[in-house]
Amino acid sequence: MNETALKPQISLTEALRREARAAPESGIVEAMNYGRDRPGLIPLWAGEGDLATPPFICEAATRSLAAGETFYTWQRGIPPLREALARYHTALYGRAFGPEQFYVTGSGMQAIQIVIGMLAGAGDEVLIPTPTWPNAAAATGIMGAHPVEVPMSFGNDGWSLDFDRLSASVTPRTRALFVVTPSNPTGWTATGEDLAALLALARRHGLWIIADETYARFWYGAGPRAPSFYDVMEPQDRVLFVNTFSKNWAMTGWRVGWIAANPALGQVIENMIQYSTSGVAQFMQRAAVTAIERGESFVTHLIARARRGRDICCDILSKTGRCRFVPPQGAFYLFFTVAGETDTRRLVMRLIDEANAGLAPGTAFGAGGEHFVRLCFARNAEQLEVAMSRVAAVLSQNG
Amino acid sequence: MNETALKPQISLTEALRREARAAPESGIVEAMNYGRDRPGLIPLWAGEGDLATPPFICEAATRSLAAGETFYTWQRGIPPLREALARYHTALYGRAFGPEQFYVTGSGMQAIQIVIGMLAGAGDEVLIPTPTWPNAAAATGIMGAHPVEVPMSFGNDGWSLDFDRLSASVTPRTRALFVVTPSNPTGWTATGEDLAALLALARRHGLWIIADETYARFWYGAGPRAPSFYDVMEPQDRVLFVNTFSKNWAMTGWRVGWIAANPALGQVIENMIQYSTSGVAQFMQRAAVTAIERGESFVTHLIARARRGRDICCDILSKTGRCRFVPPQGAFYLFFTVAGETDTRRLVMRLIDEANAGLAPGTAFGAGGEHFVRLCFARNAEQLEVAMSRVAAVLSQNG
Repeated sequence: MNETALKPQISLTEALRREARAAPESGIVEAMNYGRDRPGLIPLWAGEGDLATPPFICEAATRSLAAGETFYTWQRGIPPLREALARYHTALYGRAFGPEQFYVTGSGMQAIQIVIGMLAGAGDEVLIPTPTWPNAAAATGIMGAHPVEVPMSFGNDGWSLDFDRLSASVTPRTRALFVVTPSNPTGWTATGEDLAALLALARRHGLWIIADETYARFWYGAGPRAPSFYDVMEPQDRVLFVNTFSKNWAMTGWRVGWIAANPALGQVIENMIQYSTSGVAQFMQRAAVTAIERGESFVTHLIARARRGRDICCDILSKTGRCRFVPPQGAFYLFFTVAGETDTRRLVMRLIDEANAGLAPGTAFGAGGEHFVRLCFARNAEQLEVAMSRVAAVLSQNG
Repeated sequence: MNETALKPQISLTEALRREARAAPESGIVEAMNYGRDRPGLIPLWAGEGDLATPPFICEAATRSLAAGETFYTWQRGIPPLREALARYHTALYGRAFGPEQFYVTGSGMQAIQIVIGMLAGAGDEVLIPTPTWPNAAAATGIMGAHPVEVPMSFGNDGWSLDFDRLSASVTPRTRALFVVTPSNPTGWTATGEDLAALLALARRHGLWIIADETYARFWYGAGPRAPSFYDVMEPQDRVLFVNTFSKNWAMTGWRVGWIAANPALGQVIENMIQYSTSGVAQFMQRAAVTAIERGESFVTHLIARARRGRDICCDILSKTGRCRFVPPQGAFYLFFTVAGETDTRRLVMRLIDEANAGLAPGTAFGAGGEHFVRLCFARNAEQLEVAMSRVAAVLSQNG
């Protein structure tokens, strides 16, 4: 019997699950692929600074490796890291945290994937204010749930969340609300009042909040951090936090993050970790402990550097007279429009070609971001000045 | 308004998605938690040997860290690792492989999670011959799909797959067949005829095969490896391979694995990686390259050691007159019954208490495994002799 003749005549890709095929290619990666390896190009497209992980953090991993810590370990994370996270949060948020509230994950992205899997499946809906980093929506789609974009408004005072629009988007299938504050890419940061209103909305409808406060430390307002759901919530509230070591400690490539949650959810989170990557390498976790315990002055340095980068970019671009933006309150991105430029995918390609600077098109960030471009200013001042001058020169030619 | 009063009065856990709550706690971990930290206990419960990762592999990671390779990297894996995997497969399977067939993942477990997400969602079914390692079924359930257990038979010639039963289990919702060969925990290894029959079944029904050949090298028959789907398939067949660095190179704690697939699926796999952990640390991948390029004599050593461990365990346990098993053809587990012992969860706890040896209960491995216990013999001969003598003594007392 010729088995081959019996196969349906569809391609391998067509034989995949619809939701997997539908997962979008990253719009940021498209620009990176276009500009990769150009000599002298200054890359501002990714959410990543220019500093490698500091040696004192790397060396903690090296010591652990040399000591043979290469075996399976705790699914929830090694106890010293969970304790370090508790101390870190206690100091930063001014309230008590215990180690049993923290779960180590293989990246902030994995924290998001796990939390979405805990909350939403086929037919469920997750509300996502946009423009935003696209990965949460994509992960929602892969779970078979529907990401529902709720565009924010951009006006003279910057970005704002339309609570009526958000409230009107709730349906009986809505399970969760994904909030990134400070926001990547817009820099919008929820005020205490915003957070209280979001929590009230969630309570009213029995929704979960997925709180992505990755950029809490990169905050240009008063105090050591941005306002947080921790400031307004009770322990029994349906709030799950996702976070990462990537930005604060220049550990983007490591893929280590965490979930913070009510300990009542511990066994479910452990199971979700078990059935996705089964834990994080112990030697990575040792490095993360060192990052928290000895990295505070490095974090402070990164934040000061980002603040200076923000000022440089805002200064030079505002002088072009063509760029519209409000200086971001948090995170390390400038998200701006250029007068007369509506095809920002094309604009980004032109800036690669003519300014040798890599930006990301706003089309990568969902509804409301289409006419913007994003740049990352977590980089040394000299390079930012060069890149911004080149970009400004190109924009001035084409006014 | 008192928002709190409006919240539905259900617990946080009850407010989670049903499929996440239903993910089972690992039955292996339960035994480990019972026996963890007992002085002198010899742990044979996990799928992990007693050797740390060799220094030459660890040092490759250390060098990469010191060189500042701590940034985001290729979602599909760094080119040198994909090339090394292609060379490794070309040598092992005696046919040509290219780098574009390989995708680096954050563990073999993640390879499984990604592949299941590519194939099966809500309402879909995945056929899983049991007894087997439980994680694939759990990951299927989390995606909202149904793992359908197809129990294998155990007779005087060992374990066998009932093709009629397998065929009868196919429904219009069946999307894939998960095949672990050599099998954890049974040691059953598909023959070339078995593989051809499985492929024919898959072709006939348009199913995908998920081929977990993690233990291909731990093979006690003729030749350097177990029979493989590569021996019988065509490039256009719907076969996806999942694998890991964990076992061959004693890298369990690292969490690095790979998917091997037709390059036509590359963009979908890249997207699935992007939206789960967004890649694997570059310094880990450098270590994996070194493992492949310089680790062959270490792999040979591990295999010889496992073969000796197998003989020790079979010898001592057969002398008790109470243990029933057929020596495994592959992998590094002995899966056996003890006459008169039907509650193997209780038996395992007793062996922890009385023999100070850690085994895993067969209940952890699905239908057909309930009356068995599993031990891992990838360990040094002296320890295995001590552990087996203690176990044999306990079993003799209770005859």
